[in-house]
Amino acid sequence: MKIYDGGRAPNPRRVQIFLKEKGLELETQQLDLNGHEHRSPEMLAKNPTATVPFLELDDGTVLSETIAICRYLEALNPEPNMFGTSPLECAQIEMWNRRVEFGFFMRVAQSFRHLHPGAAVLEGEQIEAWGLKNQTLAVEYLKILDNQLADSQFIGGERFSVADITTIVAVQFCKPARVRIPEEGLNNFKRWVDEVSARPSMAL
Amino acid sequence: MKIYDGGRAPNPRRVQIFLKEKGLELETQQLDLNGHEHRSPEMLAKNPTATVPFLELDDGTVLSETIAICRYLEALNPEPNMFGTSPLECAQIEMWNRRVEFGFFMRVAQSFRHLHPGAAVLEGEQIEAWGLKNQTLAVEYLKILDNQLADSQFIGGERFSVADITTIVAVQFCKPARVRIPEEGLNNFKRWVDEVSARPSMAL
Repeated sequence: MKIYDGGRAPNPRRVQIFLKEKGLELETQQLDLNGHEHRSPEMLAKNPTATVPFLELDDGTVLSETIAICRYLEALNPEPNMFGTSPLECAQIEMWNRRVEFGFFMRVAQSFRHLHPGAAVLEGEQIEAWGLKNQTLAVEYLKILDNQLADSQFIGGERFSVADITTIVAVQFCKPARVRIPEEGLNNFKRWVDEVSARPSMAL
Repeated sequence: MKIYDGGRAPNPRRVQIFLKEKGLELETQQLDLNGHEHRSPEMLAKNPTATVPFLELDDGTVLSETIAICRYLEALNPEPNMFGTSPLECAQIEMWNRRVEFGFFMRVAQSFRHLHPGAAVLEGEQIEAWGLKNQTLAVEYLKILDNQLADSQFIGGERFSVADITTIVAVQFCKPARVRIPEEGLNNFKRWVDEVSARPSMAL
């Protein structure tokens, strides 16, 4: 199988970190996003939604969507577990992964796409008011994460999971996205950022 | 266990249909969203992200996020299967569910929240340009669904799955969201809408 990748963009980073946590190495082809290579006829024939990364299986079947790719790789390589084992743990990790995706990761991404001049090539029409609204909401969401991390070592519970990967990638994208993490407070969140950032899988 | 529900809003509808497909009936409490009951101190103590629906287990544990709730219920009640069985089928259903969530469902929801005057009570500041952009992108996405449904009986493959529930709920929300489905073309998509709309689980 082969990954069509997108460098340091957030969703490509999620799968890159997931692979390192799993100890997997896959054949990889980098696509030039700013050159719209993911929208070339050849790539659209593989992945009509033009997202990156996507995984091509040996029979030509394509899987796109970061979490679908990760879940497939987990099914083939169960350890270390990243999606939970019991029904409740699986649901809690899924819940937190989705809370972060919709409440934080997407807010950071929308801030980037509508406020950073370099994102115009991907977004087309940029809407500043929407970018600013997301910039504010992303920062507000950190309180929810800080509260969760007061009671829990990791985002989805007492062990590292795919929800931590989603969250740390969004945190690392705050700077280009113009989302400023407050210097004061959020001590549980910052404890978690330090711990997770030190994992070997985070190295570029 | 008990569902805290939100009437005919799209995410509540997804879980309501899922329960009917599974043949499950749960104790239910309706929350008045326009009255901000989901943001009351009592409800925020249960579900700090203030989303609906959410599921409260008998020990007080809360699961929010539509797909996390559905996945938990599927683990406890495996038949009829809604998330796939083999690693590849699970990944393909997850992929299509997510493609539809990000490419269509969210576009329809954003169009509603930024163009419908009645959504101001939920959204706060409405940004018309963002609503209009999503209105256009939602309609464009129907071509991707139509192409998928040329080759496939259902959204996620050859049988009904959670990806069909996500999609049909978004289709049913197009009218209040001011997303107009073109009268011409999209014949595969329209064949699927007719088939899925006729399922007993869709009855209000």
